[in-house]
Amino acid sequence: MSQNKIAKKVQNLQSSAIRELLKHSKMDGVISLGGGIPNPDLFDREGLQIAMDQVLSSAWKEAFQYGLSEGSPELRAAICQLLAERAIVCDVDDVVVTSGSQQSLDILARALIDPGDIVVVERPTYLAALQVLQLAEADLRSVGTDGDGMIIDELEALVKTTPVKAVYIVPTFGNPGGVTLAEHRRKQLVELSQRYDFVIIEDDPYGEINFTDKTFTPLKAWAAESGNSDNVIYTSTFSKILAPGARVGWLVVPGWLKRQVVNLKQATDLHTSSLSQSLTYHYLNSGRLAGQIALIREAYKHKCQTLCEQLESALGDHLTFHKPMGGMFLWARFNYPMDTTQWLKKTLANGVVYVPGEFFYCNDPDHATLRMSYVSVTDENLKEAVLRLKASLN
Amino acid sequence: MSQNKIAKKVQNLQSSAIRELLKHSKMDGVISLGGGIPNPDLFDREGLQIAMDQVLSSAWKEAFQYGLSEGSPELRAAICQLLAERAIVCDVDDVVVTSGSQQSLDILARALIDPGDIVVVERPTYLAALQVLQLAEADLRSVGTDGDGMIIDELEALVKTTPVKAVYIVPTFGNPGGVTLAEHRRKQLVELSQRYDFVIIEDDPYGEINFTDKTFTPLKAWAAESGNSDNVIYTSTFSKILAPGARVGWLVVPGWLKRQVVNLKQATDLHTSSLSQSLTYHYLNSGRLAGQIALIREAYKHKCQTLCEQLESALGDHLTFHKPMGGMFLWARFNYPMDTTQWLKKTLANGVVYVPGEFFYCNDPDHATLRMSYVSVTDENLKEAVLRLKASLN
Repeated sequence: MSQNKIAKKVQNLQSSAIRELLKHSKMDGVISLGGGIPNPDLFDREGLQIAMDQVLSSAWKEAFQYGLSEGSPELRAAICQLLAERAIVCDVDDVVVTSGSQQSLDILARALIDPGDIVVVERPTYLAALQVLQLAEADLRSVGTDGDGMIIDELEALVKTTPVKAVYIVPTFGNPGGVTLAEHRRKQLVELSQRYDFVIIEDDPYGEINFTDKTFTPLKAWAAESGNSDNVIYTSTFSKILAPGARVGWLVVPGWLKRQVVNLKQATDLHTSSLSQSLTYHYLNSGRLAGQIALIREAYKHKCQTLCEQLESALGDHLTFHKPMGGMFLWARFNYPMDTTQWLKKTLANGVVYVPGEFFYCNDPDHATLRMSYVSVTDENLKEAVLRLKASLN
Repeated sequence: MSQNKIAKKVQNLQSSAIRELLKHSKMDGVISLGGGIPNPDLFDREGLQIAMDQVLSSAWKEAFQYGLSEGSPELRAAICQLLAERAIVCDVDDVVVTSGSQQSLDILARALIDPGDIVVVERPTYLAALQVLQLAEADLRSVGTDGDGMIIDELEALVKTTPVKAVYIVPTFGNPGGVTLAEHRRKQLVELSQRYDFVIIEDDPYGEINFTDKTFTPLKAWAAESGNSDNVIYTSTFSKILAPGARVGWLVVPGWLKRQVVNLKQATDLHTSSLSQSLTYHYLNSGRLAGQIALIREAYKHKCQTLCEQLESALGDHLTFHKPMGGMFLWARFNYPMDTTQWLKKTLANGVVYVPGEFFYCNDPDHATLRMSYVSVTDENLKEAVLRLKASLN
């Protein structure tokens, strides 16, 4: 029986390689800085229980029946309210509910990208986005990042000479880079998208997990302000602020792409779980989300602070990193040549794992980099993890 | 901003045309035989409530956290038990949980079909399968059906001369045709798949909704018996026997395709809602499914009987149909030239709608056909619907 070319392509997805690499990370005693999963101790059990009680008492038929491909109107209206707090003004009709950000990206790649279309990503960029773009046979190019996020001057040099179809970016508290696009660069990027007519896919799963008192206005909002909202597609999710297991995310889609996205959503899985949508709606309606976000911010900020201090004191001579202003990830780079994939064998033997940085590049990987997630590790284990990393340098 | 070829393709999906056509069907007083949705009055509210209580008391962290792309091991084990009752012997590792049959088909199309690959479907066939196969740019061919399902002799003549990659079939209580593949044809089809090395995609959402005391052994089981289980991919769902809103289906995948399917599932949406999976597992574990299926069978059988009797007495001179032995759909054909899409305007004016048959063909549609669903309509309305159809002939 023969496979097709996509099957051949996905057979060796890098995520599988990582899974293979990290399969020992759940062994007793191993501290994992590898995963990207939220801390389940922070799930709002009481709030989710109350919301589910409401679903089962007042909305149970809808929760168990087929629904609209674009998502339930009441949830979409609640998402519009949430977006207003992020400075994004939109209408219920602009919102399409998806089964999480991964599906948002897969649908967008299928809706936008023809084989050979040029798509620009950050160096480094989100691994799973690379995968769906590769499945769509995009011609991937990358633009460097620094402490202020994607270097837009470098992007400008590229788009001046190259017909770019889309730019994929996690501008706020990025994964894996942990950096945030500075305000002047946000304006510059939006302006470029209009001048050179490319689409910006703004992926914003972490924007609410803000450790500072600054506001980071989404690209979608800047675009609306300058009158070219049509060039920015915004995607976000409840996975990092409520619970990933329910699989509820959403897209804010410009009118020119709306029907195609809804039809693809229908062809993909008809619609997102009505049960999950109803639960999410009733949770939002309870008014508990703001408190839940505050709780997550505080807890993750503390953990991030602990990891940063520990890295600075124990490994400051070896590693350089930008201290995250929010989100779930810290990205570091050795100050000297290093292969972090090779090094992982040594650190695993010493009882600590991370994700080697090379997996987050579409080309020419920087082998001296690594991604660490701090959110699901205790303070004590964060400190111990760094000591074990240090011991692995000998 | 430019769309890509897929976007252009999905812009005018036939399902959208049908939605447009049937958008008036929810008007007051209109009786709809159009939809394919289960009867929500039969949902096991008590059983679902009990199962959800168990999820929230004993499994809540798992239910709200990320899970495996292939699905939760406990649910997959429970599905293996369910499959054993359908004469399918399989291992937990053979099962991949999906977000419903639609996603199963989309993933299979992406995993199996290269543009131009020849795929055979029934005449008529399931509309949404046509869509995903068209999105994958399959070269679609169709084989006729009669009261015993797909005419396998016709398929044999085709595969003798043509390199067929896959056959997509709903062999038991089919949608839209309402017919069931006879046992000798099942054996013949499985034997052909081995001799001519094509894949059978066996779509079995309705197999449990059996109005008879006969057993209809799945193709997957016949294939295992004759030692070529590798050629049959089996897909089924809880949508029609438990509740569609939770979006839980599954695939039984041969070893040669397993890794690709799991990787595609991961790229598509990471995994199916943990909440829905946990709910489904606890429901199965409660032992209530058998009683629930018996309830659905009895209710749908009665409704089917009512519609058949009414059609025979009121429209017997106009329509020919095969009485379904199970499932949710009755397929009928006018005994004389007729355009059921045109006729729908007239029946709508008289307060009754159905789905015109032409949408269920990949080519050369039979315009004299129509699909009627009886499961969500009261007895009284089934009778009234037929009278209104009759009145629309004048």
